[in-house]
Amino acid sequence: MRNIAITLSYNGKNYAGYQIQKNANTIMAELQKAIEKVMGEKTDVKGCSRTDSKVHAKGYVLNFKTNSTIPAERVPLALNMYLPEDIAVLHAAEVSEEFHARYSSIGKEYIYKVYTGRYRDPFMADFTCHYPHKIDVTQLNDCAQIFVGTHDFLSFTGKKNTQENTVRTVSSFDVTQQGDTITFTVRGDGFLYNMVRILVGTLLGVAEGRFSKDSLGEVLKAKNRECAGKTAPPQGLYLNKVFYGEEYSQYFPGQS
Amino acid sequence: MRNIAITLSYNGKNYAGYQIQKNANTIMAELQKAIEKVMGEKTDVKGCSRTDSKVHAKGYVLNFKTNSTIPAERVPLALNMYLPEDIAVLHAAEVSEEFHARYSSIGKEYIYKVYTGRYRDPFMADFTCHYPHKIDVTQLNDCAQIFVGTHDFLSFTGKKNTQENTVRTVSSFDVTQQGDTITFTVRGDGFLYNMVRILVGTLLGVAEGRFSKDSLGEVLKAKNRECAGKTAPPQGLYLNKVFYGEEYSQYFPGQS
Repeated sequence: MRNIAITLSYNGKNYAGYQIQKNANTIMAELQKAIEKVMGEKTDVKGCSRTDSKVHAKGYVLNFKTNSTIPAERVPLALNMYLPEDIAVLHAAEVSEEFHARYSSIGKEYIYKVYTGRYRDPFMADFTCHYPHKIDVTQLNDCAQIFVGTHDFLSFTGKKNTQENTVRTVSSFDVTQQGDTITFTVRGDGFLYNMVRILVGTLLGVAEGRFSKDSLGEVLKAKNRECAGKTAPPQGLYLNKVFYGEEYSQYFPGQS
Repeated sequence: MRNIAITLSYNGKNYAGYQIQKNANTIMAELQKAIEKVMGEKTDVKGCSRTDSKVHAKGYVLNFKTNSTIPAERVPLALNMYLPEDIAVLHAAEVSEEFHARYSSIGKEYIYKVYTGRYRDPFMADFTCHYPHKIDVTQLNDCAQIFVGTHDFLSFTGKKNTQENTVRTVSSFDVTQQGDTITFTVRGDGFLYNMVRILVGTLLGVAEGRFSKDSLGEVLKAKNRECAGKTAPPQGLYLNKVFYGEEYSQYFPGQS
């Protein structure tokens, strides 16, 4: 069977998240329906990650095996015909048999967007967290560096975490500003349930004077969710990129 | 009575347009409800312009008279509490008695956004027209200059036009590109029903080879809607700014 990997982008506003579930609108359900229509057979779709209700994705990768002979370059347009407007397939490639969107992944990049304008922006409501306060971006970027490296992130995961091993490596964490929008960009080998949203919520706690760079180190050491800050709301979060090893670089042009 | 002018911004996606109508969700109805709650009395709201179903606005101005003594600077936050997330009041000022959002206006600026990426962008679907074709922006900008000046725009208004005098002055018309997004920016003393959308649709016809710069001049002269191009879809259109004379400049800081 052929193994097809597709890259897609979705606006999570109207979805209960990526993972299929009964009686709820999910990204995976929409994709399975569209893939079945285009390929003419049921397929088992392997996504690179779960995402929560209202969370967005750009550069999301999934793969599926199929007997269909449709050329890979025609797959995006064909799937987009059957997908709703808030999901778009951007690229497709026939990949080697062993490729698995989740298990072959060696890292991910998330971004989180905060809108700091005094009044809400009606065009940003579904795509940012509105936080109408001054943020010292230099200070927050400096504090974010405390999380870079290999740490036990137990303080930064929600109660629904199912991972026994809570040690993860964050390879970079940048906080930047453009006009009234602050963007948090974090890369790592893997992320725990709600980890990015709690990291961002805790860094916003620095802006509120509730944490300092030193106390963030203490929060990490505490290994206790109660010590960290709030979970930032879902609509500001984007799974931005998924990284694969060099052996797969031919399939994902432009990815870095 | 005090005369209050407010500047607001709205995402038109979920509305049947600005103007109040029975059995439909409208921007004006939402504003009248919110203003009544904040001011404690029914008011007669004067908007600067109608906008069509799904059309957006930034810098929309309206005014109303009230006996309420609430300070103008507290009006935006108070109204935003009662308005849905897709409408936001950004500024309020107490203006002179004779100011009228529509009749005092001396001009308007509309923008129209076209997304030219090969596949749709799920984050832009409600905010741009998806047009997955090459556009020569220099050519379109050059052609747009044919419309600058005082002309009879009868060829560029829909059947629902109610204005007897169809002569308008377009003071500038620029077509610019940023990445995959093309922005049409047009300023003038006034605009007929559907005029901006038909101008944009006709300029896209140039990109398709259906019109040349010369033939656009013929379309103007024809004074016949049938000779112009398609009406571009509503979701790419924004009423961007409303202009008032110098006697009102104190009330609208930052407007130019």
